[in-house]
Amino acid sequence: MAIRTIVWGENIHEQTNDVVRSIYPDGMHAVIAKALNEHPDIEATTATLQEEEHGLPQGRLDQADVLVWWGHKDHGAVSDALVERIAARVWEGMGLVVLHSGHFSKIFKRLMGTPCALKWREAGERERVWVVNPRHPIAAGLPEHFVLENEEMYGEAFSVPEPLETVFISWFAGGEVFRSGMTWRRGAGNIFYFRPGHETYPTYHDATVQAVLRNGVTWAYNPQARYDAIHDAPNVPVESALEPISERGPRLHQAGEAGYR
Amino acid sequence: MAIRTIVWGENIHEQTNDVVRSIYPDGMHAVIAKALNEHPDIEATTATLQEEEHGLPQGRLDQADVLVWWGHKDHGAVSDALVERIAARVWEGMGLVVLHSGHFSKIFKRLMGTPCALKWREAGERERVWVVNPRHPIAAGLPEHFVLENEEMYGEAFSVPEPLETVFISWFAGGEVFRSGMTWRRGAGNIFYFRPGHETYPTYHDATVQAVLRNGVTWAYNPQARYDAIHDAPNVPVESALEPISERGPRLHQAGEAGYR
Amino acid sequence: MAIRTIVWGENIHEQTNDVVRSIYPDGMHAVIAKALNEHPDIEATTATLQEEEHGLPQGRLDQADVLVWWGHKDHGAVSDALVERIAARVWEGMGLVVLHSGHFSKIFKRLMGTPCALKWREAGERERVWVVNPRHPIAAGLPEHFVLENEEMYGEAFSVPEPLETVFISWFAGGEVFRSGMTWRRGAGNIFYFRPGHETYPTYHDATVQAVLRNGVTWAYNPQARYDAIHDAPNVPVESALEPISERGPRLHQAGEAGYR
Amino acid sequence: MAIRTIVWGENIHEQTNDVVRSIYPDGMHAVIAKALNEHPDIEATTATLQEEEHGLPQGRLDQADVLVWWGHKDHGAVSDALVERIAARVWEGMGLVVLHSGHFSKIFKRLMGTPCALKWREAGERERVWVVNPRHPIAAGLPEHFVLENEEMYGEAFSVPEPLETVFISWFAGGEVFRSGMTWRRGAGNIFYFRPGHETYPTYHDATVQAVLRNGVTWAYNPQARYDAIHDAPNVPVESALEPISERGPRLHQAGEAGYR
Repeated sequence: MAIRTIVWGENIHEQTNDVVRSIYPDGMHAVIAKALNEHPDIEATTATLQEEEHGLPQGRLDQADVLVWWGHKDHGAVSDALVERIAARVWEGMGLVVLHSGHFSKIFKRLMGTPCALKWREAGERERVWVVNPRHPIAAGLPEHFVLENEEMYGEAFSVPEPLETVFISWFAGGEVFRSGMTWRRGAGNIFYFRPGHETYPTYHDATVQAVLRNGVTWAYNPQARYDAIHDAPNVPVESALEPISERGPRLHQAGEAGYR
Repeated sequence: MAIRTIVWGENIHEQTNDVVRSIYPDGMHAVIAKALNEHPDIEATTATLQEEEHGLPQGRLDQADVLVWWGHKDHGAVSDALVERIAARVWEGMGLVVLHSGHFSKIFKRLMGTPCALKWREAGERERVWVVNPRHPIAAGLPEHFVLENEEMYGEAFSVPEPLETVFISWFAGGEVFRSGMTWRRGAGNIFYFRPGHETYPTYHDATVQAVLRNGVTWAYNPQARYDAIHDAPNVPVESALEPISERGPRLHQAGEAGYR
Repeated sequence: MAIRTIVWGENIHEQTNDVVRSIYPDGMHAVIAKALNEHPDIEATTATLQEEEHGLPQGRLDQADVLVWWGHKDHGAVSDALVERIAARVWEGMGLVVLHSGHFSKIFKRLMGTPCALKWREAGERERVWVVNPRHPIAAGLPEHFVLENEEMYGEAFSVPEPLETVFISWFAGGEVFRSGMTWRRGAGNIFYFRPGHETYPTYHDATVQAVLRNGVTWAYNPQARYDAIHDAPNVPVESALEPISERGPRLHQAGEAGYR
Repeated sequence: MAIRTIVWGENIHEQTNDVVRSIYPDGMHAVIAKALNEHPDIEATTATLQEEEHGLPQGRLDQADVLVWWGHKDHGAVSDALVERIAARVWEGMGLVVLHSGHFSKIFKRLMGTPCALKWREAGERERVWVVNPRHPIAAGLPEHFVLENEEMYGEAFSVPEPLETVFISWFAGGEVFRSGMTWRRGAGNIFYFRPGHETYPTYHDATVQAVLRNGVTWAYNPQARYDAIHDAPNVPVESALEPISERGPRLHQAGEAGYR
């Protein structure tokens, strides 16, 4: 088994900001992919905004088991067509791990159906991430809590749908809290949002954060066959009903006609 | 208290199909609104696809507490701008009741983030709706189950997110089942999907169905003040942090700058 | 409508500890009941451990719409028979609001099916309670967050089942977080756990806390008829099946026999 | 990896009823264990009510990864002490798969906190089990639905807490529906309830049912280290607080004292 994982990086601040470049000279995506590849079952590659089709042509997405998403500066630059393509793949069973400022990415908002807004402060303050769901697969091997000495603050209320499970909650030195790890399922696809990862701090070099990334990918991975049927709304004709029934009353549709969409 | 409710009807088949017109000569929306108005706290009016701005200009939506949606033949005719306007109102606290073929409406898919597809058969078969969550507000006053002698079949798998609560599950004579009543919350808005209501049958004239519609509206109603803050992603400056902190490390944003979207 | 509410107080520390007595000379239950009675729809009375049947004989429970529970020092003194009686009433539709150290009460553990354990520290530290589900009925009228300057710390992981909804999350000065407001439904009964309320601090005199208590009671109230059927596991004989079926194959039970329990 | 699984069988009707004995001459537990052992990662053994400590002494439970439970005739014969022992192991991370009439077992009711009641009819009628959560691990490899030609009917309302996820819903020939596959998490333990399996029918010889059993066990298995800390409610002294705080205000507990339970 190899969990074919694509780490998508917006790759803007690494090119334009000296601080970010100094921390992630090859891009954040490169550090994340390297951390993922330390897991024997994960086979991670990268894609960036600047590549053709943002590095995610249909053929490549079709082969992907899990997509990891980091974006911040220019969410709007991602084409709507790609967003729909990714959403379809998630429904078919591709896992999705959304990181930090990706809360405002088109794909996350598309799958949540909510604004996904939050409070924020860029002050390099202390974040303490608490595991509230011990022994959840995403918390495997973690201590009760871990500290990121310098992080951007994200504060509640975070406008996402009630999750399937809450895994992490963060405490911030400035007085806020945040549900930093949550899971959802959309179609056959598992979705994990993980808060930490502001680009001006070395968060993705942190060993515990890297462990969460690996756990997130292995959790999000759905080993079953692609669920193509999710796109169908099949008519079941009377004559092939599972129990014998007769047609009764008037109808709108002619036999064999497709439903309205 | 008056729960200001708008019943939106697509109003196509009532104009073009003799069977539907004979059952709903003034439109399905009229029958639904009349049933809702039998509740002392509900004040229901109607809107249709054919009206200017589909009958839902911003000013009217701003005054609405609950929106009831029935559409089928031409979901695509609803403008994307209106869909965004409705979604914003739901996040702000407007309740939404989606009926039957509205599962494929743009607004329902927008808020669910999934395809919302299902199986279907138009054979006038028997549907038995079971209450699986007795004493849920939406099931108030209902028997353990009720029968609709002629209905269109909708069958699982229904590709919606795991609901907050499942209220009804339907049994169909032809052998299928369907989660016919489910609830979600998106932002401050309560959403209820209710399955029955194919236009060629007199479903909305049924007394039990009408009771469910009234329950659905009173349940979806959020009496609290409009939640405008859901659209904001406020920066909390260091100097106004709730706990005293000092800025540390580098930052991307200048003081007072808005976040990226 | 009057929401008949019983505030149950353990009433031990108020009798044995000078500090607690000075804050709550008539008992914590008296202060809580008084705060509840400020709501026009709530009719609150009190009961204590020391009364006969702990103040909760069957006849009184039968008339109760909502029970509020505060206990700490001697959870074990509550009789198991009473715990079962309360659980039955919750399943039938009586609301239950469990406060602070009531997390370890027999009735809460009985209904959760988990240990309900947590971390704690009694240092009078600052607690900041954040609303993570704005416009939830339990958060009605509240600001984005509120502060209790002196409270006992409760820290995660709090071993309760994943809630229906998380309403509040607390930040503590000492570095912990806690899901301070959560809801569940058990049978027809709504359950709300609310964290604050250590007896050596004047928490229940706080106006915002009192607002939460009132919101909690009105939210937990189920106005529908008592759901007695929850105790039944009825046999549905073949001859009265909803659809015509014939008995096939062998069976264990004789006609009219009750099922095994 | 071997998922050490114990299949617990009540083993009464196999001894006392000719029909049941003819279908399961070595006991239902033997057939279930054999089906599980066809999975390369599962190592299943059996235990029965009649054995000492019902075959589940502490030492054996300590070594178990998953427990599968089938009981019906004499739930009351299982000792309360064993029920608590099993509950503790589930909270620590042991998976639990509860089958059919096990809905009324002490251990299931203990972990759910509800009556777990339902309607029933023993008429050998047709059950059609629908997958409502395609590509859920428990539905791996299954068709959209499968049929058990002769089964006992279980009908809603099934009084269990709202599940984490609903996987299966059954259609019955006599007109009822039932949520036949649901999941919950209690502490670190995954719980799966699966409806089919009346002892007078050859249900556990069915290949699809056997696939569900294997999926259920592999899904319920939590490979992480035993979560012993779930039994603790640790005090965190002021002097070892994660953030520097000073003790303020009065307190009840002396330093080092345990909390009340």
